Amino acid sequence: MNGSSEQAVGLDRTVRFGEVQYDFHVRSGTSGRSDLRTRLTELDADRFVLVADTGLPEELMQAVELNLGTVAPTTVVRARAAESEKNLTALDRIAEQALESGITRRSVVVALGGGVVGNLAGLLAALLFRGIRLVHMPTTLLGMSDSVLSLKQAVNSSCGKNHLGTFHAPVMVWNDLDFLRTLPADEIRSALCETIKNVLGIVPEHYDEVASLLRTDADYTPEVLGRFIDLCVDAKSAVMRSDHQEKGEALILEYGHTTGHAAELLTGGRFRHGYAIGVGMLAAARMSRRLGVLDLSDEHAHRELLERNGAPTQLPPGLLTDALVEVVRRDNKRGYLPGTPGTLDYILLEAPGRAHRPGGRMITQVDEETVRAGIESVLHDQRSLVVA
Amino acid sequence: MNGSSEQAVGLDRTVRFGEVQYDFHVRSGTSGRSDLRTRLTELDADRFVLVADTGLPEELMQAVELNLGTVAPTTVVRARAAESEKNLTALDRIAEQALESGITRRSVVVALGGGVVGNLAGLLAALLFRGIRLVHMPTTLLGMSDSVLSLKQAVNSSCGKNHLGTFHAPVMVWNDLDFLRTLPADEIRSALCETIKNVLGIVPEHYDEVASLLRTDADYTPEVLGRFIDLCVDAKSAVMRSDHQEKGEALILEYGHTTGHAAELLTGGRFRHGYAIGVGMLAAARMSRRLGVLDLSDEHAHRELLERNGAPTQLPPGLLTDALVEVVRRDNKRGYLPGTPGTLDYILLEAPGRAHRPGGRMITQVDEETVRAGIESVLHDQRSLVVA
Repeated sequence: MNGSSEQAVGLDRTVRFGEVQYDFHVRSGTSGRSDLRTRLTELDADRFVLVADTGLPEELMQAVELNLGTVAPTTVVRARAAESEKNLTALDRIAEQALESGITRRSVVVALGGGVVGNLAGLLAALLFRGIRLVHMPTTLLGMSDSVLSLKQAVNSSCGKNHLGTFHAPVMVWNDLDFLRTLPADEIRSALCETIKNVLGIVPEHYDEVASLLRTDADYTPEVLGRFIDLCVDAKSAVMRSDHQEKGEALILEYGHTTGHAAELLTGGRFRHGYAIGVGMLAAARMSRRLGVLDLSDEHAHRELLERNGAPTQLPPGLLTDALVEVVRRDNKRGYLPGTPGTLDYILLEAPGRAHRPGGRMITQVDEETVRAGIESVLHDQRSLVVA
Repeated sequence: MNGSSEQAVGLDRTVRFGEVQYDFHVRSGTSGRSDLRTRLTELDADRFVLVADTGLPEELMQAVELNLGTVAPTTVVRARAAESEKNLTALDRIAEQALESGITRRSVVVALGGGVVGNLAGLLAALLFRGIRLVHMPTTLLGMSDSVLSLKQAVNSSCGKNHLGTFHAPVMVWNDLDFLRTLPADEIRSALCETIKNVLGIVPEHYDEVASLLRTDADYTPEVLGRFIDLCVDAKSAVMRSDHQEKGEALILEYGHTTGHAAELLTGGRFRHGYAIGVGMLAAARMSRRLGVLDLSDEHAHRELLERNGAPTQLPPGLLTDALVEVVRRDNKRGYLPGTPGTLDYILLEAPGRAHRPGGRMITQVDEETVRAGIESVLHDQRSLVVA
């Protein structure tokens, strides 16, 4: 993180999705810690269960544990931040640990980590006594700008991502930008692919601003990171306000995720989530172009933001079209529409900010040949042919 | 089941809890099967996942599988109906089997069994793709008259019952009274303890009717069983209509469950659920009497219904007060109120149909000495002393 223009960032807002609302705080600098204690005290919890990523720097984990501990007895449960461990077995283990520590309905689950830990802790909070309070303390930019803004708490099955879950809102999200200091540049870039998705899918009026802020070295000031996060909250709030179960308008948040999830699954999570979504958007853009619903310039607009972000525009080596198509077939969006043989369900754009809606719904049943062409356009070492 | 006055029973009603509503059908006789096919066809499912109790008569299971199979492809998943297997590990297994079979958002989970299978299948439906449709086909009287009328879908942890779960409503409940033909008398009696709970807690105006219908041999006609089920739906609907998350008025449904759950847990489920709840109500009645809020005649009214039902009025041998109190301490109601040292949370009655509400809430913080006295009054071979 760029330390040259170091100023404390303090941003407080309320996020509203339908009937759900929660406090969303962004902080940097030491004064943030005492603000945090004040907020935690207001929760009047009889215990905290801190679900912490095993990969966090030990001093960060201990600082948070110490901070929570001054407010209420705190149980620490560790979880590995790997997609392969985001499953019911891991959930079972952390649930048992939480229950053995004497957790009650008045306790609060605190998720300290990225998306995987946030999801495990979120599903834990959703299921314990049929729902107790949840606080997110994301330690990654992706967490701050994306995963904590979803009310979906889910784990994977061996058949696919996020197949098992439910909706559960946090009572508070606490984003400490100082947590991002030690993040590798790749992780910042990966997270910003979701910001790019929001720009392309929801708030294209911020295209120029975001294009000018993005830098391939990913060395941002806290102010700029705060701006990206704020913009993501705006975009996500806009679509989720009246659709917090993500069945209609909010489907746009899944833009790029169909091919993206398949790539993540087939690489066992080695291809970063944001990168997979970025390449997934390029594949979707190519499909839209082939179907004649998206302009060439708009396809280029996808590529430009990804390149300014220093993110890949191709899938990693070794992925094959057949395998990707097979996983897409099992994708968890299946079933929104009656399946039509020979087609696959995709979310496509007609232009930035405007989804394609055949028959009024945001799902397009894309013929398999077009799907293959879209996927092949982002395969490693495949020349990206411009279609007529 | 008494076959002397064999007539087909056909009862259709809509159950409403808050914003939730679903169809509730009771049938006996062969014409019920084709009615079932009609209803299933209306669901327009692309697949059924039949979660079936391993202990069911094989011909019953196959008949249902065949019936479903005429409507849509049907995957059968078996689950053992034991409290010790109602956990996240079993859920994980059946979820994997369901997903491998190609289940989608348009599929329907069908629960064929008693409370344990209903809960496993219910939580499966709640979590698959964050919620797909659920049909209950209870095969026990307890299922028909109690468990399917709860929207709570939960599994046990090693620390206690139903610690992990969520709310999910079925789209339909199909009660085929013919399923009850092979049930042991003890299971009928056990189920009727929940009916008794409903009479004592919610609909005391049916006390005389129920007292006259109950028989210690448990040999009932389909008409009488249908009447018991109908009465339970009435009672449960009355309290849950505006409280389907069971946090306020519907807490009365937990009457007798505090001591009852502890007895179930400590006997590893060998002491039947309904029997445990029946004895739990007697213990609670004794506590109420000691606290001076319930009359002697009302305590006797508890005992009279249980005895007419042929149900036990004592815990099984070997259970100790200390162990029961320890489990109650960890009961899943903890946390409704700030814990007060030396007291335990109970639901108590002032009279049939009238809960005790100190401070306006249906939870009473009972001092440990009174809890022990209540529990000791139902211990095996303990003379049930009348307190002054």
